[in-house]
Amino acid sequence: MKALYFDGALSVRDVERACPGPEEALIQVSLAGICATDVQILKGYFGFRGIPGHEFVGRVVECEDSKWVGKRVVGEINISCGDCEMCLWGLNRHCPNRTVMGILNRPGAFAECIALPTFNLHQVPESIPDEAAVFIEPLAAAAEILEQKPIWPRVRVAVLGDGKLGLLIAQVLHDKKAQVTLFGKHPWKLDLAQSLGIPATAMMDDSLPAAKFPVVVEATGSPKGLEQAFRLVVPRGTIVMKSTYHGLAQFDTAKLVVDEITLLGSRCGAFPPAIDLLAKGAVNVDALVSKIFPLEDGLAAFEYVKQGSPLKVFLRPGSVA
Amino acid sequence: MKALYFDGALSVRDVERACPGPEEALIQVSLAGICATDVQILKGYFGFRGIPGHEFVGRVVECEDSKWVGKRVVGEINISCGDCEMCLWGLNRHCPNRTVMGILNRPGAFAECIALPTFNLHQVPESIPDEAAVFIEPLAAAAEILEQKPIWPRVRVAVLGDGKLGLLIAQVLHDKKAQVTLFGKHPWKLDLAQSLGIPATAMMDDSLPAAKFPVVVEATGSPKGLEQAFRLVVPRGTIVMKSTYHGLAQFDTAKLVVDEITLLGSRCGAFPPAIDLLAKGAVNVDALVSKIFPLEDGLAAFEYVKQGSPLKVFLRPGSVA
Repeated sequence: MKALYFDGALSVRDVERACPGPEEALIQVSLAGICATDVQILKGYFGFRGIPGHEFVGRVVECEDSKWVGKRVVGEINISCGDCEMCLWGLNRHCPNRTVMGILNRPGAFAECIALPTFNLHQVPESIPDEAAVFIEPLAAAAEILEQKPIWPRVRVAVLGDGKLGLLIAQVLHDKKAQVTLFGKHPWKLDLAQSLGIPATAMMDDSLPAAKFPVVVEATGSPKGLEQAFRLVVPRGTIVMKSTYHGLAQFDTAKLVVDEITLLGSRCGAFPPAIDLLAKGAVNVDALVSKIFPLEDGLAAFEYVKQGSPLKVFLRPGSVA
Repeated sequence: MKALYFDGALSVRDVERACPGPEEALIQVSLAGICATDVQILKGYFGFRGIPGHEFVGRVVECEDSKWVGKRVVGEINISCGDCEMCLWGLNRHCPNRTVMGILNRPGAFAECIALPTFNLHQVPESIPDEAAVFIEPLAAAAEILEQKPIWPRVRVAVLGDGKLGLLIAQVLHDKKAQVTLFGKHPWKLDLAQSLGIPATAMMDDSLPAAKFPVVVEATGSPKGLEQAFRLVVPRGTIVMKSTYHGLAQFDTAKLVVDEITLLGSRCGAFPPAIDLLAKGAVNVDALVSKIFPLEDGLAAFEYVKQGSPLKVFLRPGSVA
């Protein structure tokens, strides 16, 4: 099958077709999304070698459990052991024995087919088109915040970062009736946020208000973002940190300790809340699609991502040939 | 009155006697404690000028409200405005208009007398001697953790740092029936911890177990402590951070975000829980007293603190003359 393959450099290859193990399904990928993490993987930061990609929608073409065959599905990205202490706590996304699709010891979705445990699959309602379904994974990461931190109606929340994730998070928290202000660096993305219903946006410059927000979500992907988050948060407030980057983050201990700030790391989430958000129309993802490339043009797609600051870029297997 | 005074250098001075304002009491200081923060103040880190000292016990000698006169008291260190949004939330320790005794815009307790609002005072039960009462302030800081984070019986907790604060925190959490392991660098302090009833102690070396503790309290006062805390904490666990130090703290964003760690800043606490802990004998502070100096020998006392790694060192006004 055709796939993108990373072994220090990215290339388009013909590789052996994915082969489902026991209790797994073989899924034909319809559409896959490029995430900021993929760009970091291509910089070599996670030491991953193989087929990247962890946002996709597809159709099950083979499965021992016949009820899955023919279903249109998305797949949770952490493949856990099911036996360890974390799994038995329900924290399977933190299973120490896990593999992670396209990120850790497991082939990803930038391919014609992918094999995944049926435990990880969720059928996609017909009302959600493929272009929206690919957003279920990043939207689940945005909605993960709600599982970790209660967001009360009217609470003032600052979301830092006007990228894909920031725009999803702002919408998710706006749907919870929080008073969201989205801070970003791209006027066109802030305009887009306003058109999506986010009531307040602001440029992220040196005139950030001090100690104004009980909740600040840091999704800039940049070391500077944490410093700005500490400026915006009130004493006893919470900074939810979504950004990961190469190198170390820094902060002033006096600020964290004296103001008793909570810094809360937040990663990926369960899919059902994200599917519900899309199904009820609470989040608009159509406006976040920048461009769709055939899988064979994957290198050009990554170049496109790296050159500009587009929103979501998709790869479509089987578009050519 | 005699006082220690810091204006870039520390000296013993005769200064004008403290003068109580409206709703304040004048307190004759019986005994005051030297804290790690005082040592940092003398390094110039907080820009404080004046009389340092924020741990004390004394007797009220003047007060408009006559019911306080003659009472043996301790005093909470944050003097808040009572009118702002934080005060009205009950978060007066975070009042943006506050002064802090001996730390921020207010004379401290290394003096014969100190003036404080009666709002800040707590009468000390007769069962608690002066040498124990001075520990109420740092013990309140230790007990603050319980206000911020539920500590369940049997939960595995690592306390990093075998200094005064670490030894108090370990005892407070042990009293809550947590399974406490105290990590330190001084065998004699770890032995002391065991004699105080802490069941497990360990040297803080390079063989720390990975991902073992749901709760880790970082009280080392050193930048290395946070790195060690991240090693010890389980995914989805909490690091309570007590250490402040000059310069920036660093951490790996991938660890915080991927493992969804909570980093919780924790500062000073309300006094009543600490008074209760001492009154019921749940915490042993007698063993933590290293030496008592007359106030006039304050410079020698600070030298003693800086040279060795003693536990608590006290200053006693009026011991001479």
